[in-house]
Amino acid sequence: MTDTDVPRSPAQLLAELTLEEKAALLDGSNFWHTEPVERLGVPALMVTDGPHGLRKQAGDGDHLGLNASVPATCFPPAAGLASSWNTDLLRRLGEALGRETRAEKVSVLLGPGVNMKRSPLCGRNFEYFSEDPVLAGDLAAALVEGVQSQGVGTSLKHFAANNQETQRMTISADVDERTLREIYLTAFERVVTKAQPWTVMCSYNKINGVYASQDPWLLTQVLREEWGFRGLVVSDWGAVDVREDGVRAGLDLEMPSSSGAGTQRLLEAVATGTLATADLDRAVLRVLELVEKSRAALADPGTFDPAAHHALAREAATQSAVLLKNSDAILPLAATGGSIAVVGEFARSPRYQGAGSSQVNPTQLDDALSALRERFTGREVTFAAGYEPESEEVDATLVAEAVAHAAAAEVVVLFLGLPSSYESEGYDREHTNLPPTQLALLDAVVVANPHVVVVLANGSVVNLEPWQGSVEAVLEGWLGGQAGGSAVADLLSGAVNPSGKLAETIPVAYRDNPTIGNFPGEHGHVRYGEGLLIGYRWYDAHSLPVAAAFGHGLSYTTFAYSGLDLVAGEDGLDVHVTITNTGDVAGSEVVQVYVADTEASVSRPDQELKGFARVSLEPGQSREVVITLDERAFSFWHTAVGRWVVEGGEFGIRVGASSRDIRLATTITLPGDGVVTPLALDSELETWLAHPGVGASLRATLSGTSWEGMLFDPHNGAMMRAIPLLRLTRFPGFPIAEAELPALLESADV
Amino acid sequence: MTDTDVPRSPAQLLAELTLEEKAALLDGSNFWHTEPVERLGVPALMVTDGPHGLRKQAGDGDHLGLNASVPATCFPPAAGLASSWNTDLLRRLGEALGRETRAEKVSVLLGPGVNMKRSPLCGRNFEYFSEDPVLAGDLAAALVEGVQSQGVGTSLKHFAANNQETQRMTISADVDERTLREIYLTAFERVVTKAQPWTVMCSYNKINGVYASQDPWLLTQVLREEWGFRGLVVSDWGAVDVREDGVRAGLDLEMPSSSGAGTQRLLEAVATGTLATADLDRAVLRVLELVEKSRAALADPGTFDPAAHHALAREAATQSAVLLKNSDAILPLAATGGSIAVVGEFARSPRYQGAGSSQVNPTQLDDALSALRERFTGREVTFAAGYEPESEEVDATLVAEAVAHAAAAEVVVLFLGLPSSYESEGYDREHTNLPPTQLALLDAVVVANPHVVVVLANGSVVNLEPWQGSVEAVLEGWLGGQAGGSAVADLLSGAVNPSGKLAETIPVAYRDNPTIGNFPGEHGHVRYGEGLLIGYRWYDAHSLPVAAAFGHGLSYTTFAYSGLDLVAGEDGLDVHVTITNTGDVAGSEVVQVYVADTEASVSRPDQELKGFARVSLEPGQSREVVITLDERAFSFWHTAVGRWVVEGGEFGIRVGASSRDIRLATTITLPGDGVVTPLALDSELETWLAHPGVGASLRATLSGTSWEGMLFDPHNGAMMRAIPLLRLTRFPGFPIAEAELPALLESADV
Repeated sequence: MTDTDVPRSPAQLLAELTLEEKAALLDGSNFWHTEPVERLGVPALMVTDGPHGLRKQAGDGDHLGLNASVPATCFPPAAGLASSWNTDLLRRLGEALGRETRAEKVSVLLGPGVNMKRSPLCGRNFEYFSEDPVLAGDLAAALVEGVQSQGVGTSLKHFAANNQETQRMTISADVDERTLREIYLTAFERVVTKAQPWTVMCSYNKINGVYASQDPWLLTQVLREEWGFRGLVVSDWGAVDVREDGVRAGLDLEMPSSSGAGTQRLLEAVATGTLATADLDRAVLRVLELVEKSRAALADPGTFDPAAHHALAREAATQSAVLLKNSDAILPLAATGGSIAVVGEFARSPRYQGAGSSQVNPTQLDDALSALRERFTGREVTFAAGYEPESEEVDATLVAEAVAHAAAAEVVVLFLGLPSSYESEGYDREHTNLPPTQLALLDAVVVANPHVVVVLANGSVVNLEPWQGSVEAVLEGWLGGQAGGSAVADLLSGAVNPSGKLAETIPVAYRDNPTIGNFPGEHGHVRYGEGLLIGYRWYDAHSLPVAAAFGHGLSYTTFAYSGLDLVAGEDGLDVHVTITNTGDVAGSEVVQVYVADTEASVSRPDQELKGFARVSLEPGQSREVVITLDERAFSFWHTAVGRWVVEGGEFGIRVGASSRDIRLATTITLPGDGVVTPLALDSELETWLAHPGVGASLRATLSGTSWEGMLFDPHNGAMMRAIPLLRLTRFPGFPIAEAELPALLESADV
Repeated sequence: MTDTDVPRSPAQLLAELTLEEKAALLDGSNFWHTEPVERLGVPALMVTDGPHGLRKQAGDGDHLGLNASVPATCFPPAAGLASSWNTDLLRRLGEALGRETRAEKVSVLLGPGVNMKRSPLCGRNFEYFSEDPVLAGDLAAALVEGVQSQGVGTSLKHFAANNQETQRMTISADVDERTLREIYLTAFERVVTKAQPWTVMCSYNKINGVYASQDPWLLTQVLREEWGFRGLVVSDWGAVDVREDGVRAGLDLEMPSSSGAGTQRLLEAVATGTLATADLDRAVLRVLELVEKSRAALADPGTFDPAAHHALAREAATQSAVLLKNSDAILPLAATGGSIAVVGEFARSPRYQGAGSSQVNPTQLDDALSALRERFTGREVTFAAGYEPESEEVDATLVAEAVAHAAAAEVVVLFLGLPSSYESEGYDREHTNLPPTQLALLDAVVVANPHVVVVLANGSVVNLEPWQGSVEAVLEGWLGGQAGGSAVADLLSGAVNPSGKLAETIPVAYRDNPTIGNFPGEHGHVRYGEGLLIGYRWYDAHSLPVAAAFGHGLSYTTFAYSGLDLVAGEDGLDVHVTITNTGDVAGSEVVQVYVADTEASVSRPDQELKGFARVSLEPGQSREVVITLDERAFSFWHTAVGRWVVEGGEFGIRVGASSRDIRLATTITLPGDGVVTPLALDSELETWLAHPGVGASLRATLSGTSWEGMLFDPHNGAMMRAIPLLRLTRFPGFPIAEAELPALLESADV
């Protein structure tokens, strides 16, 4: 038996490694592999891209790892998956991803990405879940659980505040701590605390001037000490700035290979004492622990069933689509009837995933045209391309052909969407409009036939306002993955009832969005000026109309909400509500619970999603749903005390079918956790007077003095009491001397 | 002849002062006076509140200086004056203020206040001019010139970023430098460079965490070194935090008296060496220079003519009022006709100025009811109070009486506005609505009589949307000062043609405003998240409808715009435009020039006011107006190079009667001043390639390498070139080594 036959424990290995081996272990050995230590039986692990499918490069990899990859199931990207609001689906989909990852002897799948959709222009929005951190976090956690149940790891990314592609490698996201905590870190926190991803991937950008790849607050204090993360932090590919600072801050593994530069730098830093050996060892141990976790799967990779995974991809795609509009119940289309004109190149050549590092080589690919022809054997299905996806010039011949088909048909199914070049990793969009070729086609088609159903294929929201009034139905299919075409046929025919709900608001116009003037930033800085008011929080705060509200999605049936009841449960406040299918067909409803802190001492969004549940019901069936709200559902991050705080007072509990379709509402009064704003010498008199430890005695001291009348005057008193006590002591004749304040401050300790 | 008979020069006095005398000179001697040095003939100077009138306290002053003051002319506060857009008026009004100040032996009038109207809720908006820094700056400069022409000084306040009353003594205005420079400092800069106010008053608040009262960047670098300010900086009353830090930073005089505490602290700081004697001397010299400037006026105070000043106040009030709506030319009211029902307590008991430190004891007070009765001798004028201003409870008897009057009259003139308690120094408003009593009255009156003219009295904008559709005319009178009542009669009768234009946008709803979620801040910080997008810049950027646009104001006549021409002039680009009075009565038009930087590399507002002119025309008369745009009119603050930059490219020049009533527009292409974004090691490859000093040779180096195809690929190239060059050198096989970069950077120097 040799040294390599029985793997040593990570701690044992650490003890046997040379300094040079340790430093080398913290750098990739090439684009996709970690460094092996053959003499000790430490294998090189392979990691690959792909939140929604495996992108394992077949050959050696090019400079930037963008070459073709082995076939794998291409599931719908996160923008679609999020619209399912279905954690069970995400878990099963994760299991499938895990099986494929394992079968390919890959140890870590580089995903999911839970960055917030701050601007509709972000080129990578298709890879992200939502504008809401609770929804994104809970769905991603389920995906991570699913993948990791197969003995392979995930990499939660891009940590953190990587919300644009423009200057993504240098930009500083300037964002205040409360906003970071409540919006931009929350999804990461939920995934870490619920699912413990094996790895977290730090982002390229800076946060408030500090590179995420070397931010000890982010990578150690928050991630590990506060959230209890126990895995490894890997750099986004090329995100390392100062290597030893990264190791000290909590960045363990540099990827891809720095060709020895990073290793050399670490050795020098240890030699000169700028990096402690303990810091190096800690990072090395985490790499070794990752290797340890990966061994079982590598030893027994197993296989997967491509057909079963394709079926799952199809199920996921049906749940990802959102029926935005359905006038006069034009959908579902009947099995028999007049001819259906399918118009639009995307029906034949599907746009089903985004460009960049997540681009999967699918095991098979369904197009909607074929699927519709298979489905509607009882009707004539004609086809006209209508446009060239990547052209910006209207092709009159294609349009004329489409119009002829449309005019001759009973109904038109018009496939529109974003060309691949419109949205990609690496750059942001410049506008939210569909291409001019498609808008011209639409204008012509609706004149030729009043019965138009639009099916959209896009990874990030498009401007609906100019045209949605002129069509009868809109099905937002997002990027449907390799089975998206079949899924569309399932939905249009009614074989599957649409159940998706928007995970992001579709604004009336791009100019309505919260980042106007603050995106994508300039001179290295982007200001998160809207603070907490991302997505629906913004549209609500400004009472802005929207084209489609967060949480909105139609069904072929209808649902009634009743019996709202709040019950104190083991894990928090249980919201009970009964949902009834009041229509004629089976369907699924996503019940959403929003919490409103109506009496807060700080600025809070009008309402925030704090829980949701998906329920499937036969016609006439009722079911009670219970959604638990934990303490966090009522909390805000109190910057003055540096922790989550529940402030006593009234909270609204709103249960709805969307953020703007609240069906039931009630209120609850919570005692709060009694946070007291800490006093400082320059706190305002009002704050001193309100303090439980010193307020009453201070009031007594002022009582009867010549200042009392002025300080407590009903008209001017508020202005007077807004003066810091310290400043008041400097006005002639104030009854308390500056020198007395420190003692007073001390006496206030409660 | 004694020592005190012949005043020594400030420098001579400085040389003769003891250290104790010097320190004492930097502290007030009481609430309103500086410290005298009798042995050297240095008098105590008196300074008093009052941008729009003198508030010289008669007696000893109370703790906080709020007691009754000697009578003085109460001109309209700045909110009204700004609506005149009339620099000539402001200069004449300044002269009158200066005469009153001088006559009362006061050396410095504490004003004007040029803070921006960031939120409509700011309690002190009535004292400020505008949401636009060019308008505020130019008007305030004229006022300062006028006051100082009389041999007394002004105090430009509150420097800086004091845009709210909530926590004004402790709040940190967190605002990026570009926004500070382009919005919040610009009005100060214009006044300082054009009019050299004798003093500048630092504000209470912090800016980005540093108290304005001890911010060397603000008080020395920007104010003195960049703008060339030669006067004295005085603290707002009670704004001193750490006295010696203030002196070092450039705060010269502490007010009011700190009862010796400040003096003592300075002496200790000098003794322990934490404050250099040179710093102390510099501040003392400025006090002595202020004394020197004040001597002539003190020796010959003169008198003023209250009646003439009242007439000027009346003229100012007529120009301050803005006619927002005038359906079917209901205004002006004919001299003869049926009865006029004057409704509303404010017609009898005028609301004419704001509360707080600026509250003037007027020499006389005109009420609109009396003025209307005098004016309309040919018509019956009845009166009903309709509401109690300070009550929140509808008085049914008062409403019924008003309705009876309204029903019996031909036309109703309804006086509405904000009660005094709604807006004041010291606290901010909670909403922008009129009181419920007035809204109830209005609802009842418009039912009784369809011909209703509303006259508003308010210092900050009110919500018009709920009711402006139900009345025929709206005259926004702001706070009209002591002659506001007569001015209203002048305008309603047509004796004076309305010419005021809004200096601030009136939004459709409070929730439309740019500070939602970011006002008034919390836990000591307020985020200026909207950045540059204050006021109309915001409503334009979001394409939001407004109740009344910035620059809007109707007249009883009409004006035509023609002959727009751009001519290179001595001081910049001269915008020529001809205005013709196309109506039947004489009138004045305010011509506004907006500049749009349509090709900027940074985020810029859609358009910004950069010049304006007021022109008075007889019916049928035409006049050419020339408005000069200097370099600054096209510049932005370039944070990476730290200076104002004109970027080459196309600019729109838009000439209008309001920000949303552009009558003529053209474009001009400017060469720009050739700013080059400085390179750093981690600049993106794209930035390196665009650099004139190194771009071409770098491109040549990459040419023919295995990287060229990828870096310049039409699809993925943009993403590749967005990678910092430094990071690219770390990818395996990149043709440039990290070690070569410093030399490359050096070679880029142009």
